[in-house]
Amino acid sequence: MGKDPYFRSETRENLLFKRLKEVEEKVERLSLLSRLGQILNSTLDHQEVRKRAIEAATQLMRAEAGSLLLLDEKGKHLFFEVALGEKGESIRKVILDIDKGIAGWVAQNGEPLRVNHPEKDPRFFKEIDDRIGFKTRNLLCVPVRVKDRILGVLEAINKKDEKEFNEEDLSLFLSLANQVAIALDNARLYQEMEEMFFQTAESLADAIEKRDPYTGGHTRRVTQYSLAAAKYLSLRPEELRLLKMASVLHDIGKIGIDDQVLRKPTPLEPHEFDLIRKHPKMGAEIIGHIKQLKEIIPGVKYHHEYINGKGYPEGLIGEGIPMIARIIAVADTYDAITTDRPYRKALSKETAISELKKGSGTQFDWRVVEAFLQAFHSGEI
Amino acid sequence: MGKDPYFRSETRENLLFKRLKEVEEKVERLSLLSRLGQILNSTLDHQEVRKRAIEAATQLMRAEAGSLLLLDEKGKHLFFEVALGEKGESIRKVILDIDKGIAGWVAQNGEPLRVNHPEKDPRFFKEIDDRIGFKTRNLLCVPVRVKDRILGVLEAINKKDEKEFNEEDLSLFLSLANQVAIALDNARLYQEMEEMFFQTAESLADAIEKRDPYTGGHTRRVTQYSLAAAKYLSLRPEELRLLKMASVLHDIGKIGIDDQVLRKPTPLEPHEFDLIRKHPKMGAEIIGHIKQLKEIIPGVKYHHEYINGKGYPEGLIGEGIPMIARIIAVADTYDAITTDRPYRKALSKETAISELKKGSGTQFDWRVVEAFLQAFHSGEI
Repeated sequence: MGKDPYFRSETRENLLFKRLKEVEEKVERLSLLSRLGQILNSTLDHQEVRKRAIEAATQLMRAEAGSLLLLDEKGKHLFFEVALGEKGESIRKVILDIDKGIAGWVAQNGEPLRVNHPEKDPRFFKEIDDRIGFKTRNLLCVPVRVKDRILGVLEAINKKDEKEFNEEDLSLFLSLANQVAIALDNARLYQEMEEMFFQTAESLADAIEKRDPYTGGHTRRVTQYSLAAAKYLSLRPEELRLLKMASVLHDIGKIGIDDQVLRKPTPLEPHEFDLIRKHPKMGAEIIGHIKQLKEIIPGVKYHHEYINGKGYPEGLIGEGIPMIARIIAVADTYDAITTDRPYRKALSKETAISELKKGSGTQFDWRVVEAFLQAFHSGEI
Repeated sequence: MGKDPYFRSETRENLLFKRLKEVEEKVERLSLLSRLGQILNSTLDHQEVRKRAIEAATQLMRAEAGSLLLLDEKGKHLFFEVALGEKGESIRKVILDIDKGIAGWVAQNGEPLRVNHPEKDPRFFKEIDDRIGFKTRNLLCVPVRVKDRILGVLEAINKKDEKEFNEEDLSLFLSLANQVAIALDNARLYQEMEEMFFQTAESLADAIEKRDPYTGGHTRRVTQYSLAAAKYLSLRPEELRLLKMASVLHDIGKIGIDDQVLRKPTPLEPHEFDLIRKHPKMGAEIIGHIKQLKEIIPGVKYHHEYINGKGYPEGLIGEGIPMIARIIAVADTYDAITTDRPYRKALSKETAISELKKGSGTQFDWRVVEAFLQAFHSGEI
């Protein structure tokens, strides 16, 4: 029977067919990897990349759960973001010592691990399972590395349908980990650049104020108050970003006001007050030619307008004043009242709140005052 | 013979074998696509992404040449970067009207094209071939699109070994174009953020100066001069970046100096001069707490040191003064001499150059003065 050509051929055909199915499956998984790579790289938001990485690990590996553990700056701890796949929606945060568990070993050694019997592996750290209420049956754990720097490890836990992870899974998972590393690194670089922008602008704005020794920290506080109030006004993320930028830069026009006027301890003369009133317009001019700051010009220019039209520089009325400027106006006034001025000492928080209430609907947008009060009463201001 | 089971089986086996080879090849090309995607996304430098995109198109499509055409802001023109694959190293830049050629059609319609006989396609724009000295035999042209916005088109030209492009090539090329789009968009976002940082810092620095009406534009010029001189000092790209940041921020400490002192048209009293001499240290303090600016603190703090130790604030000597500070010192002095001051009119370029030469080796690092002179004589300053 062994020499019957028909049988021999049938066997070869079966083998070929089996191999074809395997390779076809590989094509499918590689196509999925390519789509997941695109999804990972389509954002520069670090948190979003982390979330997508965990989802991708779970999906590509057909695992019950995926997790991403990132090394802290000192390389002593792993920050654990674990998503329990279909078994649970929530991402729970855990911190792990670098010398504990399989994840710690992979992060320290930079070598991938495929573990189908964790209970037999002395490196396995069962406490994690206990802590998050999960039973690890098997797992893949690979380093997430960019340019020889280990950022952390990526894990796929419990292959579905009671199966085990094979070498092919591991090789595919290593490719995914490379894409995760790149996406994480790009997001980090972007956020560092953004931070540098905000911190530099804030420092310069602070320095501008410090010519008036009474107003140190004003920029920082107005930014904080504006963002706290905005929480209760359901602004979109993009609007929050613009509000933050406009708050940081709202008083930079003061650079054009004479030291003597800024620091004057006695009431201002009319011509000096005219000078002060120029600062929103001057601020708008300073940033006017910067393409990326076009959208925040109204926030800087109109933060001294009144809802009843009696503010400056243009006497805009009601909705004619951009929302961002209306928010800064309230935050700015609250800070001005509660800090020392050249001409008087700081007044109490309660006085400031009652001034805001008094001005609600005339000087200020009542909705913004309401939002500010909510933030105030919840302790955010 | 048609009914002989052995023959039938042999045929099926051949078909299976052929199909297996095809699918195996697909696995190889998908793996290559995944690697190329990683390479594309491993940089946030827009120019580098463009270069890598062209290389990836050529390699993945086994084409003689690849090219990337990007739409300008108004959507009227395509900027053409063509790489002639193995046939030529150089990337030549061409500008094309949006209503011309196959690339223009693809950019306007957002549909991919596979053209195996361009001479028969009325959209084909033969002049490009003539202009770049290339004969297009066949081509693939696909839109490069991110979130419904068309950034441009990606082309693969002349399949190698006299072959034609098939449907499978097209489908793979569309995947590559998606990855190119994502990488280009990330690089754009990063560079816009970087630009925003530089422009805002420059504007604020300018505003700080403008309190002294005689010094408008000083920051901008010192930055330009520093970078021009640095070209002749073979600084690394990272050092150039730090030099640019330090130049932009070198005088921000002046924010702490009284208007009266800054603008004084008569010689300064000793105590006023002491005040002026504080600005490098105050500048360093203003940026001192910003993590991303740590490396430029020495450039800001020591730009008034002399190579012979007679400068301020610390009297550092020679190589003890960081190179970036030594460069800014020369650029700063040149600009101070050639512009109006509160106490005198601007002096001539020639006077400034002779002052630099006079101070070479005592006030200034002679190598920096030499570099500055080279930049000056080549018209860059």
